[in-house]
Amino acid sequence: MIESVKVIGAGRVGSAVSARLAERGIESREDADVVLLCVPDTAIPAVAGGQAPGHGWIGHTSGATPLSALAPHERRFGLHPLQSFTRLRGAEQLDGAPAAITAETDEGREIGFELAWLLGLEPFALAEADRALYHAGAAIASNYLVTLQRAAAEIFREVGAPESGIRSLMQSVIDNGFELTGPIARGDWDTVDRHLDALKERKPKLVPLYRTLAEATVP
Amino acid sequence: MIESVKVIGAGRVGSAVSARLAERGIESREDADVVLLCVPDTAIPAVAGGQAPGHGWIGHTSGATPLSALAPHERRFGLHPLQSFTRLRGAEQLDGAPAAITAETDEGREIGFELAWLLGLEPFALAEADRALYHAGAAIASNYLVTLQRAAAEIFREVGAPESGIRSLMQSVIDNGFELTGPIARGDWDTVDRHLDALKERKPKLVPLYRTLAEATVP
Repeated sequence: MIESVKVIGAGRVGSAVSARLAERGIESREDADVVLLCVPDTAIPAVAGGQAPGHGWIGHTSGATPLSALAPHERRFGLHPLQSFTRLRGAEQLDGAPAAITAETDEGREIGFELAWLLGLEPFALAEADRALYHAGAAIASNYLVTLQRAAAEIFREVGAPESGIRSLMQSVIDNGFELTGPIARGDWDTVDRHLDALKERKPKLVPLYRTLAEATVP
Repeated sequence: MIESVKVIGAGRVGSAVSARLAERGIESREDADVVLLCVPDTAIPAVAGGQAPGHGWIGHTSGATPLSALAPHERRFGLHPLQSFTRLRGAEQLDGAPAAITAETDEGREIGFELAWLLGLEPFALAEADRALYHAGAAIASNYLVTLQRAAAEIFREVGAPESGIRSLMQSVIDNGFELTGPIARGDWDTVDRHLDALKERKPKLVPLYRTLAEATVP
């Protein structure tokens, strides 16, 4: 049973994780059962290398970084919360979010699952070989949602439409279970061409975005 | 004051609009104050042409279709609800959604605004010359959100990650005010390259989507 966790990092993820462990009465100490690195991906090898070898486990919260980045430690795992964190909120951001657990042994996987449950996450097992692909999928869903919002906002500012409408529009798409509506769903290529003509004339930088997404949307 | 509206079309939009007008006690009759076409964009010219010229106004609910599609009628306007509609819900889908109103005269704009308020929408004026660009923005925000969800779901199925996590991830991005997190926000190009390598190997069809969106995301 995990009785102590040393969290390294106090960014978006580290702050939420530390707050949750404090709520749960889990002790933070130097020689902890688990050391959890909540640091930028690129910093993982150096931070892991700087940790004294202990009797416990070491994990990172990166989506795409291989477990080998935790060398020389061998009792290691990955725990990636599938969630977009903000500094404006706290431990409640962890509640019920899925967490991808990767390990090289059954014991490692058990530790990862136990820590996830302790944090209020819903763990699932993810193979090491699948992590980069999985994380690309997460980036497509989360980071590129921001890209769509920004592109639409740029256009709405240009035409004087209310930017707040983008959020409610996106919310309705989610609430409706991601049902595809609009010109492509109707096979209405005239409207798609009208969109492209307008973009070419007034927002040419958005043409590749629109075109590539249109191509990816056609059933 | 609008006392009667004849709605043509009983699809996603037409059904919600008709239900709302019935709630409001607005009469539907042949020689109505307003004829509102809730038909596919491509059908607008033919349906408009088939309407006897009356004393009233005629409008369509298309985002990108020019008002000239309502010829030969000259007392005309556009009312485009900025909302993704589903047949599974009713008039409440209109509540508080923005609506783009386009007209060629002050009187036409007043009719459009009045009808929007009657429907529970929040009207704003949109210039005819801006409609195609505006609608491209709406399509980027709504239709392409579905495209991202589908791409992420395809990947999640491939790696055995829970598809329901995509919805909660997207929801957290919206709830956090579209704050950009992840590798591009951190300038972590190694992770972006890892994503691209994984996609090239296992989901090559998604490479152009990922790459174009990555390029559009870089500040």
